[in-house]
Amino acid sequence: MPNTEPRHGETRAEGLQVLAVPGIPMIEAGDNLPETITRGLNAAGLILQDGDVLCLAQKIVSKAEGQLVALSDISPGPEAIELAERTDKDPRLVELILRESTEVVRTKPGVLIVRHRLGLVGAHAGIDQSNIPHGEGEDEYALLLPEDPDASAAKIRGALEAASGARIGVVITDSSNRPWRLGTIGCAIGCSGIRVLDDQCGGTDLFGRELKVTLINRADAIATAATLIMGETTEMTPVVIVRGLPLDQVDETAASCIRPLDEDMFR
Amino acid sequence: MPNTEPRHGETRAEGLQVLAVPGIPMIEAGDNLPETITRGLNAAGLILQDGDVLCLAQKIVSKAEGQLVALSDISPGPEAIELAERTDKDPRLVELILRESTEVVRTKPGVLIVRHRLGLVGAHAGIDQSNIPHGEGEDEYALLLPEDPDASAAKIRGALEAASGARIGVVITDSSNRPWRLGTIGCAIGCSGIRVLDDQCGGTDLFGRELKVTLINRADAIATAATLIMGETTEMTPVVIVRGLPLDQVDETAASCIRPLDEDMFR
Repeated sequence: MPNTEPRHGETRAEGLQVLAVPGIPMIEAGDNLPETITRGLNAAGLILQDGDVLCLAQKIVSKAEGQLVALSDISPGPEAIELAERTDKDPRLVELILRESTEVVRTKPGVLIVRHRLGLVGAHAGIDQSNIPHGEGEDEYALLLPEDPDASAAKIRGALEAASGARIGVVITDSSNRPWRLGTIGCAIGCSGIRVLDDQCGGTDLFGRELKVTLINRADAIATAATLIMGETTEMTPVVIVRGLPLDQVDETAASCIRPLDEDMFR
Repeated sequence: MPNTEPRHGETRAEGLQVLAVPGIPMIEAGDNLPETITRGLNAAGLILQDGDVLCLAQKIVSKAEGQLVALSDISPGPEAIELAERTDKDPRLVELILRESTEVVRTKPGVLIVRHRLGLVGAHAGIDQSNIPHGEGEDEYALLLPEDPDASAAKIRGALEAASGARIGVVITDSSNRPWRLGTIGCAIGCSGIRVLDDQCGGTDLFGRELKVTLINRADAIATAATLIMGETTEMTPVVIVRGLPLDQVDETAASCIRPLDEDMFR
């Protein structure tokens, strides 16, 4: 990456930094993430500061929490078998998707969009088959989202604050699609210690809230900024610091980003 | 904002910087934005570097291009009058929204979601009534999106590259909603000189593309990162530099982010 030092004659402007935490090893079930991250920070000479927001790729949190499932352990039920046929998917994967979901939102050949029990709408209930160790046939694995990502973020934040003495935020990031737009962007699925939704006067919210208030999703914005350097090599840079945001530690969760069902016009 | 200098004993890590360009004045129709931005950069001692992506809030581009419309000049037709009644909106505003749109996507009292002629799906065809000079009744104004934001971005980029000698990208940013999630995030409505969509192996796209490729929307991610410091005071910080991305100047446009209609499951 290019040098981000100020050039000769240039003053340092106000703003944010988005910093990769290098040297995070492959994560296995049972790993202590705060300890692994602290080792990575120390090795890189990075010191957590008040207001830093530590962004963690969902995959490493899921792996550490043992959310890897062998598809050979899964027996698809009749609904999964029927849905798998309709969407050209592995019935065992579809069974897992249904177990993780509260609602099937859209289907067509090749497409299965559901509402995850956490309220997240997307393909495959966030279940990931990439970048995880898997073989062929009976040895295939799928990685589920963390059981409770907001709780995971709070726990990781607590351990890192205790280790560093800094007041930080933690965001667990995933990628997300939009129906009318190509390409994924970042999404915060677990948060602790940050302002998640930011009320702003002078605008209107869309899709059901006629308010003279614009609600800005800062959690997703932080997650998306982090994925700019996380995105291409998730396995190599799964931990990123967003530095320079105002310290604004509140007890908001990623769950608060879920639009109430009666306002969701995609349903 | 907090100091982003490295602390004593901390090495400078690799990553991105998101920098506000201070001192941009209120923009009026006919203003030369590249000249205004160059003055702001010079006053702040900021020097554009190869690979910098300059993010501009849509509002200043629209204003400079004279996209402010007096509602008193608008005579709503029968369709606008009917739709205004159904959605509790000003019929003149609805007339403008219809003129800017190719399709009404969702309506309910207080809600009017359309597909803008540029392909963007959202409330009010991106028309903004906040943060613009307006009075009451007959003196109300609405600000339309730029006529061709990709062309605007290319023109601004050309002028700034000529003035600075640096090879840069330009992104015109707006905010955008999602049906199932609260809070706006950033969205790139005009781009020049950046990689907009980034093909990545090892995943699947959703909503209709069964590929072993994950498509990352880097343009929206850059726009969203910029809005982290642009968001709260759009009028005060409408220009932001995202620095540290790999220089990857290609002829991609924001228009390439529009999902083909037959894949848009929101319709």
